[in-house]
Amino acid sequence: MRSLISILDFTNDELDQLIATAKDIIANPEKYWDCCKHKKLATLFFEPSTRTRLSFEAAMIELGGSVIGFSQASSSSASKGESMADTAKILSCYVDIMAIRHPREGAPYVASRNASVPVINAGDGGHNHPTQTLADLLTISREMGRLDDMTIGLCGDLKYGRTVHSLIEAMSRHTGIKFVLISPAELALPDYVIQNTLEKHHIPYEVTTSLEDALPHLDVLYMTRIQQERFDDVEEYNRLKDSYVLNTEKMKLAKEKMCVLHPLPRVNEISVAVDDDPRAAYFRQALNGKYMRMALILKLLEEAKDPEKEAIRTDGLVYDRICTNPKCICQVEQELRHTARVSEDGVLRCIYCEQKV
Amino acid sequence: MRSLISILDFTNDELDQLIATAKDIIANPEKYWDCCKHKKLATLFFEPSTRTRLSFEAAMIELGGSVIGFSQASSSSASKGESMADTAKILSCYVDIMAIRHPREGAPYVASRNASVPVINAGDGGHNHPTQTLADLLTISREMGRLDDMTIGLCGDLKYGRTVHSLIEAMSRHTGIKFVLISPAELALPDYVIQNTLEKHHIPYEVTTSLEDALPHLDVLYMTRIQQERFDDVEEYNRLKDSYVLNTEKMKLAKEKMCVLHPLPRVNEISVAVDDDPRAAYFRQALNGKYMRMALILKLLEEAKDPEKEAIRTDGLVYDRICTNPKCICQVEQELRHTARVSEDGVLRCIYCEQKV
Amino acid sequence: MRSLISILDFTNDELDQLIATAKDIIANPEKYWDCCKHKKLATLFFEPSTRTRLSFEAAMIELGGSVIGFSQASSSSASKGESMADTAKILSCYVDIMAIRHPREGAPYVASRNASVPVINAGDGGHNHPTQTLADLLTISREMGRLDDMTIGLCGDLKYGRTVHSLIEAMSRHTGIKFVLISPAELALPDYVIQNTLEKHHIPYEVTTSLEDALPHLDVLYMTRIQQERFDDVEEYNRLKDSYVLNTEKMKLAKEKMCVLHPLPRVNEISVAVDDDPRAAYFRQALNGKYMRMALILKLLEEAKDPEKEAIRTDGLVYDRICTNPKCICQVEQELRHTARVSEDGVLRCIYCEQKV
Repeated sequence: MRSLISILDFTNDELDQLIATAKDIIANPEKYWDCCKHKKLATLFFEPSTRTRLSFEAAMIELGGSVIGFSQASSSSASKGESMADTAKILSCYVDIMAIRHPREGAPYVASRNASVPVINAGDGGHNHPTQTLADLLTISREMGRLDDMTIGLCGDLKYGRTVHSLIEAMSRHTGIKFVLISPAELALPDYVIQNTLEKHHIPYEVTTSLEDALPHLDVLYMTRIQQERFDDVEEYNRLKDSYVLNTEKMKLAKEKMCVLHPLPRVNEISVAVDDDPRAAYFRQALNGKYMRMALILKLLEEAKDPEKEAIRTDGLVYDRICTNPKCICQVEQELRHTARVSEDGVLRCIYCEQKV
Repeated sequence: MRSLISILDFTNDELDQLIATAKDIIANPEKYWDCCKHKKLATLFFEPSTRTRLSFEAAMIELGGSVIGFSQASSSSASKGESMADTAKILSCYVDIMAIRHPREGAPYVASRNASVPVINAGDGGHNHPTQTLADLLTISREMGRLDDMTIGLCGDLKYGRTVHSLIEAMSRHTGIKFVLISPAELALPDYVIQNTLEKHHIPYEVTTSLEDALPHLDVLYMTRIQQERFDDVEEYNRLKDSYVLNTEKMKLAKEKMCVLHPLPRVNEISVAVDDDPRAAYFRQALNGKYMRMALILKLLEEAKDPEKEAIRTDGLVYDRICTNPKCICQVEQELRHTARVSEDGVLRCIYCEQKV
Repeated sequence: MRSLISILDFTNDELDQLIATAKDIIANPEKYWDCCKHKKLATLFFEPSTRTRLSFEAAMIELGGSVIGFSQASSSSASKGESMADTAKILSCYVDIMAIRHPREGAPYVASRNASVPVINAGDGGHNHPTQTLADLLTISREMGRLDDMTIGLCGDLKYGRTVHSLIEAMSRHTGIKFVLISPAELALPDYVIQNTLEKHHIPYEVTTSLEDALPHLDVLYMTRIQQERFDDVEEYNRLKDSYVLNTEKMKLAKEKMCVLHPLPRVNEISVAVDDDPRAAYFRQALNGKYMRMALILKLLEEAKDPEKEAIRTDGLVYDRICTNPKCICQVEQELRHTARVSEDGVLRCIYCEQKV
């Protein structure tokens, strides 16, 4: 059974096919009105995320399917101590595909190993959020007309921003890509992303603390929020925060043909006045997210017809090497054996949260 | 884009058309089964209101459409600080029409200025609740066979009861209407409603503290709840509360042809024993609410086909006159400029909450 | 109007018909795809129960119907003090059938007396949960090929486990049934169940504290959870708990042809390793629950076409004998007259919670 847990689960060709499907849906929506008739999606949101949940629900309904689910853990059996594995097995009795949001890293992966239907990771803590990256890719493709040969600025919290890491991974597979990493030192891109992705794929990148300096060179600007909680020193936060707010003044420095993305929700890191700028693509990005989720649901349901495809990888597993990540699902899931595998970078990593063990 | 924020957004003719549509739906429900096929309604309830939310959802489903949404703010992105404007823009990517309930006055209006689909105000704090008034109008029309020439008693909390104020506004446009205002002095109808609506339209009205005295003269009795919180003096509340409870004894004083309305939920202001009285129309009123919401959804979706219609009024705006209403959306919404306009009564009012600035 | 409040509301023939319908749905699902077109189910969950709620919702959708509702009391009008009776009357305006979960015993019964559509009890406190019993019956029938002539072991909390009591009631109507009651003394089956059901129907039963001793003789093993809260003495709990955990070691003692049921969610009373045993039927039981709910919805909607059928029983009522059960709906429902009736065992019982008055 094929699932989507990390954006790396899909090849470049598969991502290109998803983008092509999404564009066909946009061009011919009525062609897809009955594609998921008699199919059901479960939206299992163990923590609230209205935008992502409603995007999945709208996607399924526009394909002619139905939706059941819950929007927070307090209305779920998890509050009675049910394991992720049991929830996945039971929900497989009710629906044809499920989208799971969970505060614990690796929880959707555990679900995918126990469900008999495809599982979509709709965000697992700070770990993965692959459908956001799908939205980002379609947006860049539609706004710029290509996915190659461009300079992409990533601005804000590059340390904890999982959408930033996933976008780097996905775009690093394309040719002619250059990144500009714009953040305060406290929130710089982690070394493992630089080594395992940028340097491994020989992707050129620049590091800067100045959004103004970077702006004139960018084809894409990906904004994220800087959260006060990330700073030890409040004064440092107050000193820095305004320099990472995008406003109409700063937009004057940018190319005429550029696009601004943001995973949303924003708080104040993009001034409302920028919304009227034709380069502001973040609301179109939300719309693109719906179309990519439609394409994804179609793909996974199609592949589910052949359940032998993509059996769970069992090669190279190392058991009982203890994962110490306090946010990993393996810390709480009943009778879940700690399991690791040597990853591409030669490091032994937990198969659930991908942290070193 | 046409929205429904206040009952005054519709002309009398438009209200009559909505009533006619609702009656046709009641007579021929199957005619409407596919009217909203492939259409989606979002029910965005930032505070719980089961009855209103389920009424909207039932309405949309009976028109063949689908529903997505949330039932309280804690499961929404608002808890992450997303603005009403951004929520409206994003939801416009997912649905064809939205119904918004919000504790802040003016929030649905802000949404309607940012959405690219019609917005229905499903209650904004103590401000407006126009679909309740639609239910009231259809109920009076169906129970009495007319909307003209009648005496309407309004009983209970006339000070804070927004449904009472809206009903007065809507019925004051009809001929031969007389109101009897039945309440303790503490909860009397505010002066501005008397001046701006009753006196302006030369509508006769009586003021009384006695439900018994008023009852024999009424064609319609509109009951509301008296809440203990409204009283400074608990003893005063205890002394008064029973005289505003409708029971079978008091019903004997009423005309044989009369109808009792209540916006529901009730607590104990109408005795359960009254439910069996054929004049008790409040549960039929709930049913009528569903039919009027169906008619409303149809009307707004029809008008949305011509998006030029009813552009947002931009005449007469006065900027940066500060609204001090602590419950107004303008106190919290990101980068929302305080804006006012001279209203019909010659007073400069906030365009969001309609309070004097 | 016919409702399902207790499993005893249905005759054995009716239960057999439901099982037959469920099996036909399993064999020919597409035959039922449009059975509930234009019908709506309300899932009114005044306390969370994801599995039960989603099972009902999946059931209605697979019949071609739609669902509205809420998943916890805080998003309902009940938090504003609305009575169960009023909620039932209003929801009757919106839907064709409703499933109610409520922490108060008797609440769904109150709803059924006030609704104008069928009501399904989806669990009322520790009182009844008849659709779980429907799932149990179909599971035993499918796993064993019969409902007669078998030894059924009931293990764990037999004192408070309402699903255990209902299963005993339902299976006691069949021939050749023997029960083995496996529990610590603290959680033994209550005397009234033994007297009113087992002894009344001359059903043989054994009592034991040892799961190991019982296992070799069982055709069906029904597991339930032992909760620490039930014990006065924590040490006693710790001493006992492991002996009621089903693991692969204990499974070796069981017959080759046996089935293990559990109402789920489990915490740790069945080891995850048992899931792979072909005799582990508890996830298939969850699937069966969906099919039985489909059969039930079909039956009640069919009977609702003849509203005269099964009027509310008004014979033998005794008024104003006070029910003192603190969990009974009659303790909180507005203007609900305390009412009792002499039950089959000759005891005067509250008609809502069935406790002695």
